[in-house]
Amino acid sequence: MFERVAVVGVGLIGGSFALALKQAGACRHVVGVGRSPENLRTALARGAIDSTSTSVSGCDLVMVATPVAQFPAVFERLATQLAPDAVVTDGGSTKRDVIDAARRALGPRIGQFVPAHPIAGAEKSGAAAASAELFRDRRVVLTPLAENSAAMVDRVDQAWQACGARTSRMSPQAHDEVLGAVSHLPHLLAFALVHEIAGRPNAEELFSFAAGGFRDFTRIASSHPEMWRDICVANRDRMLEEVSRFSRKLDEVKALLDEPARLEALFAEARTARDAWLKRSS
Amino acid sequence: MFERVAVVGVGLIGGSFALALKQAGACRHVVGVGRSPENLRTALARGAIDSTSTSVSGCDLVMVATPVAQFPAVFERLATQLAPDAVVTDGGSTKRDVIDAARRALGPRIGQFVPAHPIAGAEKSGAAAASAELFRDRRVVLTPLAENSAAMVDRVDQAWQACGARTSRMSPQAHDEVLGAVSHLPHLLAFALVHEIAGRPNAEELFSFAAGGFRDFTRIASSHPEMWRDICVANRDRMLEEVSRFSRKLDEVKALLDEPARLEALFAEARTARDAWLKRSS
Repeated sequence: MFERVAVVGVGLIGGSFALALKQAGACRHVVGVGRSPENLRTALARGAIDSTSTSVSGCDLVMVATPVAQFPAVFERLATQLAPDAVVTDGGSTKRDVIDAARRALGPRIGQFVPAHPIAGAEKSGAAAASAELFRDRRVVLTPLAENSAAMVDRVDQAWQACGARTSRMSPQAHDEVLGAVSHLPHLLAFALVHEIAGRPNAEELFSFAAGGFRDFTRIASSHPEMWRDICVANRDRMLEEVSRFSRKLDEVKALLDEPARLEALFAEARTARDAWLKRSS
Repeated sequence: MFERVAVVGVGLIGGSFALALKQAGACRHVVGVGRSPENLRTALARGAIDSTSTSVSGCDLVMVATPVAQFPAVFERLATQLAPDAVVTDGGSTKRDVIDAARRALGPRIGQFVPAHPIAGAEKSGAAAASAELFRDRRVVLTPLAENSAAMVDRVDQAWQACGARTSRMSPQAHDEVLGAVSHLPHLLAFALVHEIAGRPNAEELFSFAAGGFRDFTRIASSHPEMWRDICVANRDRMLEEVSRFSRKLDEVKALLDEPARLEALFAEARTARDAWLKRSS
C-alpha cells in the first residue's frame, strides 16, 4: 500500500503505528526520524523502523508523532522535504491547534495533511513500549480539512485501518469538544483531586486510608504532565467551558445533599448511564 | 475467642466477616440475622452462618452489617436483646451518624458498642459475594467511644485482626474527615461527571469516544446509589466542605490554563504524590 513511510517521533504511538503497518504488510520500508539516538536504536532493534534519517523526502506517507509542542517545528521541516504526492497524518490528542500549526507551516500544501487522533495510549512511553496491537479495535478520529482530496483522506483512513483501528470522521471543532468532555476533563479532575489532597497538612494520613476506588479514580493523574499541559492549553477554551459545566454540576449535587431522594436518583441515573455504556462498548 | 457470634445483615461485609472469623478459628457458632430468607439460605449453604435467628440474645459478639439506613432499627432491637457482657461492632462507612443512632437506642449500654469501618468492598453484594479474604491486609478503622472499656475495644480489635485486617484507631470526627476526602468525595465526583455527560443531547456520541481513562475514572460511579446517598447525607457537613475545597482547586486550575509552566508543575506534583503513595502502599 505504501512504499516508504516516515515516522517522525518513534515513541509509543509512532513506533506502534510502524509495527502495525508492517505486521499488516501495508508498507515496504519505514524511516525513523527522531531526536534521541538511543530511542531510534531501540526502534531499529525492535524492527519498528528499517533505517533512520533526518528527512522525510522520498516518503509517500508521513506520520507525525512527536509531542504536540514540537509540531510547529516538525511541520516547518516537512514544508521543505515533502514529496508532492505524499500524505501526512499525525497522532496529536488535540486537533484545532495542530491544524493551525500545520496550516502556518505548510501553506498551500496543507491539503496533504489529514489530521488524526488515535484514542489509544498507555502509561508507558518510548519505542520500547510500542506494540503492533496498540490500535487494534481502538477508535481513530480523522478530522479532514476542506483542502484534502477525498483520495488523500481515504489513503490515510486505510493506513489507520491497516493498523486495526476503527476509524471515524468529524470536524476538528467537534473532536476537541468530544475529547474535551470524555478525556481532557477527567484527566484535569484527577490531577486536581490528587493535588488538592497532597497539599494538605495531613496528606500522608489521608493517602494511607485511600483504597481501590481512589486508586482507579486517580490512575490518569499518573499521566505525563507535559503532554497534559499541552493538551489542556491547546484546548483551553473547551477546558474553561468543561470545568465551568462540571462546577455547576457540583453545585447541583451539593444542593441535593438536602434532598436525599433526588440525590439517590442522580446517583442511580449516573450508574445506569455508565453501565449501559459499558454494555454497548463491550 | 468468641463462642457465639451474631451477624445482622449477612451481605458482602457481614458474610465475609463471618467466613473470615471461622477460617481463623476465632468463633464456634455464627447466627445470621436478616430480612431476606433467600440470602440467609445462601449464607447457610456457603457456611458463613450456622443457624438463623431473629435475635442476638446469647451472643458474645454482634456485627451490625446492614445498610446504614437500617442501623437505628437494628440498635433498637439490640437494646432489648443484648447480653450484658456482649460486645457490638459494625461495618458502616460513616461513623458519627452511626454512633448517634447507637447512643439513642442503646442508652447506658452504649459502652458495649465499638464502632468500626472496614475499608474494603467490591462492586458485588450479598452473601453470594462474601469471601474469607475480603479484609485480608485491608485497613479497618476503629473509632472507640469514651464509654468503651479498654478490654471491649481490644476484643473488637482482635476480632478484626482475626479477619486479617490491619486495624487502627481514630476519633469518629477524624474518620469522617479522612474518608470524606479520599473516598466519599471521589465517589461524588465520579457520579457527578457521568451524570453531567449523560445529560447532554450528544451523550451517546460522547460515550462512544470514551476510553480506558474514562472507564477507570468512573468505575466508582457504578457503586450502589442508595448506599452512597446514605454516606453522603450522613457526612453532609464534610461533603459540603470537601466539594467546596475541590471547587476552589478547579478555579485555581482554570486560572493556570493561562500559565502553562505552573499548570505543568501542578500536574507533575500530583503525579509525584500519587506515584509515591502507590509505592508506599504496595
